[in-house]
Amino acid sequence: MIFTKSAKENYMKLAFEQAELAQKQDEVPIGAVVVDSNGAVIGHGYNRRELDQNALKHAEMLAISEACQNLSTWRLEHCSIFVTLEPCPMCSGAIINSRIENVFYAAHDRKAGAAGSVVDLFKVPQFNHHPVVYPGLYEQKSAMLLQNFFRAIRARKKQK
Amino acid sequence: MIFTKSAKENYMKLAFEQAELAQKQDEVPIGAVVVDSNGAVIGHGYNRRELDQNALKHAEMLAISEACQNLSTWRLEHCSIFVTLEPCPMCSGAIINSRIENVFYAAHDRKAGAAGSVVDLFKVPQFNHHPVVYPGLYEQKSAMLLQNFFRAIRARKKQK
Repeated sequence: MIFTKSAKENYMKLAFEQAELAQKQDEVPIGAVVVDSNGAVIGHGYNRRELDQNALKHAEMLAISEACQNLSTWRLEHCSIFVTLEPCPMCSGAIINSRIENVFYAAHDRKAGAAGSVVDLFKVPQFNHHPVVYPGLYEQKSAMLLQNFFRAIRARKKQK
Repeated sequence: MIFTKSAKENYMKLAFEQAELAQKQDEVPIGAVVVDSNGAVIGHGYNRRELDQNALKHAEMLAISEACQNLSTWRLEHCSIFVTLEPCPMCSGAIINSRIENVFYAAHDRKAGAAGSVVDLFKVPQFNHHPVVYPGLYEQKSAMLLQNFFRAIRARKKQK
């Protein structure tokens, strides 16, 4: 699927709405949506690691899982994911496993990013699927959201 | 936790029991168990990708998720995972994210293994957790189980 500039921005805004739901619940604000080949949002999710006390509950995983459920297939070919932070190895692996075609992410993750920053799992020739990656849409917005979140946590800790 | 030879063998046998449950349901036979620091099995799972039509339903993911639920924490420090096939990037990432200490796997996965065969996510210095990996326990048994499974599928396809 080819996205217009405004379509890409709108989907990324939906991912940010998810990130804000995380933030409201004191979770690291990361959100994601999965879009099918017709442009319908078929999956959404936000980071719930602390809420659910489960290491697998990243935004992308919830969005991919919902998308599989909605399409009744594990194959998300021709689907795209929009996520506010570069996927970690687990989520990048999930994107490969589900055959998602396009990956749009906002901020780079210099510590754990597996879509170019630390490693690039999407470019390993031996793997059987290679999503196309579009980084940097609303990068500043996402970086600020995360920075402010961690700044607020540090401030609260100091007060204690 | 330090495992005796027979303890390791017993846990891997439990992972094989899981793999056999997958095989009985026509799933690629891969199984896993998670063991806590006291040696209790706190998570188990087998590949359910086709059954659930969900790209995330690998054996390791189900075992890790159950372990988090049982311990009421996303931190599986001091836990070990036993799996019949080398983890893929998604599952290796989940092992890193959940801070699992030890990874025992049977067969290498030369096409998608992310614990040494194609890439080695556990040795990336920038990541914040580095599990210790013990490959090769019952490697032949796992390789045969997978070979026979795919051979039977090909034979069935030829008959059609």
